[in-house]
Order: sequence, then C-alpha cells, then structure tokens
Amino acid sequence: MSEFRQDSVTGRWVIIAPTRNARPRYIELASDHKRTEPCPFCAGNESMTPPEVWADRDSKTEANSPGWRVRVVPNKYPALEKSSARFNPKEGLYQTMSGVGIHEVIIESPQHVVDLRALSKEQIVDILSAYRARLTVLKNHRRWRYLLIYKNHGERAGATIEHLHSQLVAMPFVPKEAQDEIDGLRRYFDATRRCIYCDIIQSESGQGERLVFESDRFITVCPFASRFGYETWILPKNHAANFEQSSDADIIALAESLRAFTAKLNLLRDNAPFNLVLHSAPDDESIGQRYHWHLEILPQITRAAGFEWGTGVHMNSVAPEHAARLLRDAPL
Amino acid sequence: MSEFRQDSVTGRWVIIAPTRNARPRYIELASDHKRTEPCPFCAGNESMTPPEVWADRDSKTEANSPGWRVRVVPNKYPALEKSSARFNPKEGLYQTMSGVGIHEVIIESPQHVVDLRALSKEQIVDILSAYRARLTVLKNHRRWRYLLIYKNHGERAGATIEHLHSQLVAMPFVPKEAQDEIDGLRRYFDATRRCIYCDIIQSESGQGERLVFESDRFITVCPFASRFGYETWILPKNHAANFEQSSDADIIALAESLRAFTAKLNLLRDNAPFNLVLHSAPDDESIGQRYHWHLEILPQITRAAGFEWGTGVHMNSVAPEHAARLLRDAPL
Repeated sequence: MSEFRQDSVTGRWVIIAPTRNARPRYIELASDHKRTEPCPFCAGNESMTPPEVWADRDSKTEANSPGWRVRVVPNKYPALEKSSARFNPKEGLYQTMSGVGIHEVIIESPQHVVDLRALSKEQIVDILSAYRARLTVLKNHRRWRYLLIYKNHGERAGATIEHLHSQLVAMPFVPKEAQDEIDGLRRYFDATRRCIYCDIIQSESGQGERLVFESDRFITVCPFASRFGYETWILPKNHAANFEQSSDADIIALAESLRAFTAKLNLLRDNAPFNLVLHSAPDDESIGQRYHWHLEILPQITRAAGFEWGTGVHMNSVAPEHAARLLRDAPL
Repeated sequence: MSEFRQDSVTGRWVIIAPTRNARPRYIELASDHKRTEPCPFCAGNESMTPPEVWADRDSKTEANSPGWRVRVVPNKYPALEKSSARFNPKEGLYQTMSGVGIHEVIIESPQHVVDLRALSKEQIVDILSAYRARLTVLKNHRRWRYLLIYKNHGERAGATIEHLHSQLVAMPFVPKEAQDEIDGLRRYFDATRRCIYCDIIQSESGQGERLVFESDRFITVCPFASRFGYETWILPKNHAANFEQSSDADIIALAESLRAFTAKLNLLRDNAPFNLVLHSAPDDESIGQRYHWHLEILPQITRAAGFEWGTGVHMNSVAPEHAARLLRDAPL
C-alpha cells in the first residue's frame, strides 16, 4: 500500500503511491486520435471500475449498471486506502505513516462528455449534489481529519482520463495548505472578531476591479494574490463553514455561477485546462464554524516551474484585475 | 513594474508580472517544426537580448558579439526589476511590495543546443562557473536576501525558449520554501549540534537503497520524501554552506555528477523535462555556515494537480527506491 513520508528538513509530507504507476493514460491515446480502448467511465462499462459506493440513479436500476446520472466509485489506482495502520515509529531520520485514507472518483456524466460546456445546469447541480452527499457521509467517519474534492480538467492540468470526473480524498491529518488557511482565518478572527473571507467579499464586491460575476448567493472573483493566470474563486456571500451544509437553493445558485465562469473562461481559451479545489471546513475544533467554504479554480495555461518549486512563490504574468476584466467582458 | 502580493489569509506571496505576458513562445513554434524566427540566444543574435552583464568569452572579442561560451543577460521579460521602492503601506486587506529584484538569463551555449546530452563536460563546467561568478557578484549587493538559480528544461517543465539556459533571481526577502528549510536545519542543529544534510548523506551512502551515484566529492540520491517521480538531489559530501565558495575541483566534480545523472535520466526517458533548483545559503545570519548547499532536480513527467494545490502534499507514483534502482542500473 502507499505511504505518507515526511521530508526530514522541511517537514513537507508526500504520498508515495507506486500502484498509481499502473494507470492507463487514456488521454494520451485520445490525443493521438486512436483511442480504441473502451472508456471505463461510460455507462455500460461499469464493470471496468470498482463497484460503486454511491450513485444518483433511476430507482428501477441496479447498482453497477446503466441508469445513473452521477456515479461515485473507489479510485482503481488509489493514492490512499482504508486500513487500520497509522503512524509508524521514526526510523533513523525518516518519519512515515501508512497511506490510510479514501480516494474516490466522481463520474460526472454517463455519456462520454469531455467538455464542461456540454453539461446542462441540471447536470452540474447533480454533480454538486454528489459532492454534498459524499462529504456528508464521510464527515461522519471521525477518523478523517480532512476531506478534499478536486478536479483535474485537461491533460495539462493532470487529468489521465478525459471523461469528465472529479476526485475525493479523505486524509487522516489536516494538510499544510489547509492548516495555513486555518491559521490565517484564526489570526484575523482573533484580531477583529470577523471572518476574513466575509471582509474580502465585501471589499471585492464594493471595489469591483477583480469581480467576475455576482449573484444573490455567490460572488466570483479573481483573487488579489492569484497564483495562476485567470485564477478564480467562487465564494458564498453568506458566511457558511461547510459546503456540505448547502441547501438545494445554494447548490442551484453555485451551479449557475460555475457554469457562467466556465463558459466565460472557454471563450478566452478553448476548453482551457484547470484544477478545481473545494475548500470546506476541516475537522478542526479550533476553527469550526469560523471557516468560510469556497471553490478555487486554477487554470493551467502557464505552469509552476523551477522558480515556484524553489521558492514557493508563484510568478503570474496575468494580473487578476486584467483577468477579471476579460472574464467580466466575455459574454454569457 | 511587477509587484509582490500577499494572500491575506495564507500569507502566501506571489509575483504579479504582467510584462512577462508579452513573451514569445519559441517552443510552441519549434514543436510545430516551423520555427522561422531567429533564436535570441544563439551567437550572432546578441542584439536580440538586453546587453550582457557577464560573459565567459575570448579575450579578443567585444561584449555583445560572438566569441562567448556562456553569456548572462538581464531577462527581457523580467519578473523582478531593480528599483528603489520596497514595502508599500497595507491597503485595506492587501499587502504588496514593489517587484524589486534581479532576473537574469544564463545562456549555456553559443550554438542552438536543446539537449543536455550535447554538452561536453567542459561546457557544463563553464556553466557552473558562470553560476558561481554571478552569485559571487550579487552576494555582495547586500539588499538581496535570497539568490536562486534554476533551470526549466523542456516545455512540460515551463521552458518557453528551447535553447539551453538557466535563470537567476535575486529577491529582497527569504521565500517560504527556503525559510522552511532553514527552520528545519536549525531545529535539527539545536537538538543534535549536527547538520541534518550531513547525517542524510551518511545514512544514504551507507544504506544505499536510494543512492544513484557517488564520487569522492558528491553524492547523488533520490530523496526519501520525493515529490516527483525520479526526483534527485546532488549534495557535496563535505559540509559547505555556499555553492559560490566551491573550488574549481568541486565544480569539475559536480559537472561529472550532473552529466552522469542527466545521461542516466535520458536513458529512462528521452530528453526528459525537468526543473533544477540550486539551494545555496541565503543571507540569514541565524543559519549562516550551518546551511548545506545542494542541487535539486525535479523531473516533470507527471505533474502537480488539484490534490497538490489543495493540500501542499505531492502524490508521487514512483517510489524513490525504485527510481534510484533504475537510475543506478542505467549504464553511463
């Protein structure tokens, strides 16, 4: 099984997951216009994936058969797996931990859809509802300290299968990026008794220079310190810690904002590659309801390189004010 | 000019450098086999770059004309520029700093060489000597707190010009990745009175499982917590804080180790894309001579994606023990 390993100097954790090396790369085949293998995510090919753990399907249909709209299966090449082992004793200079966790794939359409623009608003609602359902179930397993839903869209953004899908990972600890965010939220709250994301929303909505789209419930902005060109965040305007507590009305409004954004982004760059990351409150009592969930969309038009890996500082050649203006001006 | 900006929540700094957006992308053209533009890095085209700041050239030749072996020029599309401005007052939620610094390009060959295997050992010695010369000069400008030399090789690793080159950035502060490393080195030193890299070298040399290559002066290993498949570090076996204090004999030995590694890597994957990052002691009195300089080579065969951006934890499907065995077994 896989293993968490910690760099002895920086304290950085990685996951060493050799079984993932066996993954077939359907995208490389597809881009050569000679894909002959059947797609494991298409309806009818359910036996090509591990048995489903959840599906939004017609009531008369059976598990692992067609009739579903969104289907969630364990990742066939998981980075993390359920197991009872946890921390290992430190061996010499090196700290490891068993690769304990959950790694699921959320298959977003029964048809072989590879472009987000082919999804209807109703389909996006179904996908977001699947996110909510899985997070709600896994939240109750108290052994997972952090749940992450993310999406790699396009080969440049790390996708190995082109059929639209997202992934869910449950981890036994709160990772560094999330911890940095929690620490910042707490620092600001302690100083002001306010939520920093609420203040950012108010400031960006009023100022308008980095605003892309605003609805009753959500605001879409290019963040002030964007790491990537066209980086965009979608935040709920009313303070809410957890995505999974969203109402149906929230989900519908989020689907509208997400669909508007992807339509605009695709006008600027056809089928642009991007990573999407859902930030929802981790299992951390010290932050709890003070967290403010949001979606971060990270287009991968340019890429992190030597400078970024060496410093942790991203060079971004597209000012967020410029990106927001282009996105704002792109017609819906 | 460009601007450092800080994320209000996480404290993460980015560089917003809109002028870099004007960069021509010679690699895209080259890969289409229709490059008709002259290469700005080839001998004879010196006027296409800003005037050189340093060159290893025949004594009878004039600056900015042919006759050089390695040539250093300011980056035409700099992420950072010399200027007197520094910190700006915080505006509302947002902290910025002028994009003050230096951004240079080290052109590694007068010929249009795009594959490292085409460089002789003598040429690699010349390139490393250029690194040493520029770091030595810039170290004396006390306003730069951090100097980074890095290399993006191949389009997948972020290169926009295929002609072999490295880059040098001087920054007015010690960035996060370097600070994390300094903190770790100091923590270990305070606990043990020893250098952790010296202990890692001793352990890896003795244990051998992650060892790729060893010479009298250098050790080449796949690090225990590798972020990327085939990630490899080259470390001097005798403790030394600064690369720029390397002797000529050190530089020759490093060139041998680097050449051996790239030859082996290219046997596993033809002209593999990678980032190379030189870690040398920053201008930080608290660490000083306790730092242990080294080269980190980060192949970009798979890539960071949603999981990595959301957690800061890299998933790596190539165990370093496996990578080291393959690299060790690849003939020289």
